[in-house]
Amino acid sequence: MKAFQASLPLTLDFEVGAIKRMGEKVEPFGKKVFLMVDPFLQGSDLVAQITGSFSERGIGFVEFYDIVPNPRHTTIDRAVEQVRYSACDVVVAVGGGSAIDSAKAVAFVAVHGGSCWDYTERLGEAVKRPQSRGLPLLVVPTTSGTGTEATPFAVINNPELGLKCAIVNPLIYPDVALIDPQILVSKPPKLTALTAVDTFCHALEAYISIHCTPWVEMVALESIRLFAANARQCVEHGDDLEARARMAFASTLGGMAIASAGVTVAHALGQPLGAMTDAPHGGTVAASTPHVIRWTLPVGTDKFARVAGILDPSTLSLAETERAARLPDILQKLFTTLGVTDTFRSYGLRPEQIEAFAQTVWTSFNQDLACHPKKINSKEEVADIVRMCF
Amino acid sequence: MKAFQASLPLTLDFEVGAIKRMGEKVEPFGKKVFLMVDPFLQGSDLVAQITGSFSERGIGFVEFYDIVPNPRHTTIDRAVEQVRYSACDVVVAVGGGSAIDSAKAVAFVAVHGGSCWDYTERLGEAVKRPQSRGLPLLVVPTTSGTGTEATPFAVINNPELGLKCAIVNPLIYPDVALIDPQILVSKPPKLTALTAVDTFCHALEAYISIHCTPWVEMVALESIRLFAANARQCVEHGDDLEARARMAFASTLGGMAIASAGVTVAHALGQPLGAMTDAPHGGTVAASTPHVIRWTLPVGTDKFARVAGILDPSTLSLAETERAARLPDILQKLFTTLGVTDTFRSYGLRPEQIEAFAQTVWTSFNQDLACHPKKINSKEEVADIVRMCF
Repeated sequence: MKAFQASLPLTLDFEVGAIKRMGEKVEPFGKKVFLMVDPFLQGSDLVAQITGSFSERGIGFVEFYDIVPNPRHTTIDRAVEQVRYSACDVVVAVGGGSAIDSAKAVAFVAVHGGSCWDYTERLGEAVKRPQSRGLPLLVVPTTSGTGTEATPFAVINNPELGLKCAIVNPLIYPDVALIDPQILVSKPPKLTALTAVDTFCHALEAYISIHCTPWVEMVALESIRLFAANARQCVEHGDDLEARARMAFASTLGGMAIASAGVTVAHALGQPLGAMTDAPHGGTVAASTPHVIRWTLPVGTDKFARVAGILDPSTLSLAETERAARLPDILQKLFTTLGVTDTFRSYGLRPEQIEAFAQTVWTSFNQDLACHPKKINSKEEVADIVRMCF
Repeated sequence: MKAFQASLPLTLDFEVGAIKRMGEKVEPFGKKVFLMVDPFLQGSDLVAQITGSFSERGIGFVEFYDIVPNPRHTTIDRAVEQVRYSACDVVVAVGGGSAIDSAKAVAFVAVHGGSCWDYTERLGEAVKRPQSRGLPLLVVPTTSGTGTEATPFAVINNPELGLKCAIVNPLIYPDVALIDPQILVSKPPKLTALTAVDTFCHALEAYISIHCTPWVEMVALESIRLFAANARQCVEHGDDLEARARMAFASTLGGMAIASAGVTVAHALGQPLGAMTDAPHGGTVAASTPHVIRWTLPVGTDKFARVAGILDPSTLSLAETERAARLPDILQKLFTTLGVTDTFRSYGLRPEQIEAFAQTVWTSFNQDLACHPKKINSKEEVADIVRMCF
């Protein structure tokens, strides 16, 4: 047995209508909230409900809406200044991955000082790694897909240096992730589908990762079971609270899985494709997944067969090898059913860009490539895989 | 969706040979260990390895072997005095459920003062519920079955009052549960079988409990899958480290499941039967389980069918109702294969004791009965179920 560790050092709190009780939830943690919210929610009912519940309990708050995709170090540092200036003693984040990642960094740096960039992992550079937690942090995911509420990562963008680096520290986990299925009901079908597929890919990639453990296996496969049972319902009947809740749980489990085992090739390709073309993250990752599986087989046959059996129980009568071989087609059909059908080409990658793109993947996403169960030996091999995804 | 919460506020640390590195594991937590060990391990190689690893790192220690089944409040209070007198700053427990439960109480009370009995939940009495943790606590389960390393409970016996009550507080979770499959290899086959069956019953009962949540469902079903795949191998080939590790993980998951959802009728009957006859816990619980399931059906058909499908995949072709109906026989056969075949009669309960026994269950284990998915309305109904278990 390979040694492994597991923990879940935050409270997951699933409750329909929890938003209206935010004041009660925050009360044990502090008296003045730094409220970081995705800007598209500014002026929304959602924010009014949250701030209303603060006022009811006599909890003060300062609102902050300067959240951008790929959070910048300068924006985060400005938020930290405001936290300190306004003497907030608890941070609440409401939004997608960018809002939550920003808030993880803000809560941590507000206590430990300096610039957030000093805390990011950079090869060969001095990294600040304090031994205690930051301000209390409660997060409310509104998109459900990233799973970032349950990871110890915060990705920060430094455009001046042309670098994206991450704080990686178990002390930056939120204290509470509050998941209210009610606020997911208004997610449009397309976004619902894209985030569901992203969730699935997190779970699948962590499960096949060379760093998979018995803990990751449990969490990832449950995420996949919940995806299989609820994704389509969420897309077609977005007001089904039970399906929304279970899909949100799948997303959190996906985050827990990658927190332990990382992601693999499909994310290594999907992330830079998204950065290059502005295509949606879930879509770029899904575009390569069936092809990556086909390329990976027969490595990982047992795991691919198990996933195929969950997604399509009619394959359970097949021998393992044959069942595994069916997985790419099962996925392509399933993604199509969900309306996720784009390819690398339709997302705008041009054949003449493949070499440069493969170079980026090879140099900047080598850590993800290294988690893949089939070894990737060169950027030429990466380019070959990219061609399969056209 | 019913609201639910989930967390795992301790680190599970699975590692073959971890025992030899106990000093290293303890070092971040303190300088002087209060080492609580099951008395049958006194003078063993295991203890020598642990204390040796402390000495290597310059960590002091005080040994304590006064651990009894059903830990007494007076024993725990004496241990607390020793911790304070010897100025230990970290507690380590090595042993079964009693050692670990004792240590949870000792670490907590050593910081917060008074008698451990004041912290137990007693109806209508004042209960001490401090808001901060006790001394750091590392536990090493040597029997693997109770799952107590992953619960917020510590059961304490007060023979003077004729009461067993529990401290129930998320702040008494250990900091680290260190699970070393190597030390499980020497568990004799009979004990291995009994603890495996106990693990299975924890998982099954939490899964069917009215307090089951999506989190409990994940954890309990994975525990059952691991039991199905590894229990027999552990009994027949006790030196298979991989099977031992996976069965130990199943046991921890069983503890996590009951920590959230409680146990149901089989434990409500098995616990007092064990107390009355000195029969082994796993055996008394197993003795009633198939009969309790037969009595419970058709309530919970979907869940019983799912468990039947995991334990015997050949039933997957059956309709749900029929598959569920097979579960009692599947279990009886499986328990027999593991050598767990006793009945309430063979454990020494006499027919003329049934009424009094049912009365005890009805009054002292009503909390467990209340978790059961089929309502139990009277002590006469309890007596009827007991008769089925003869």
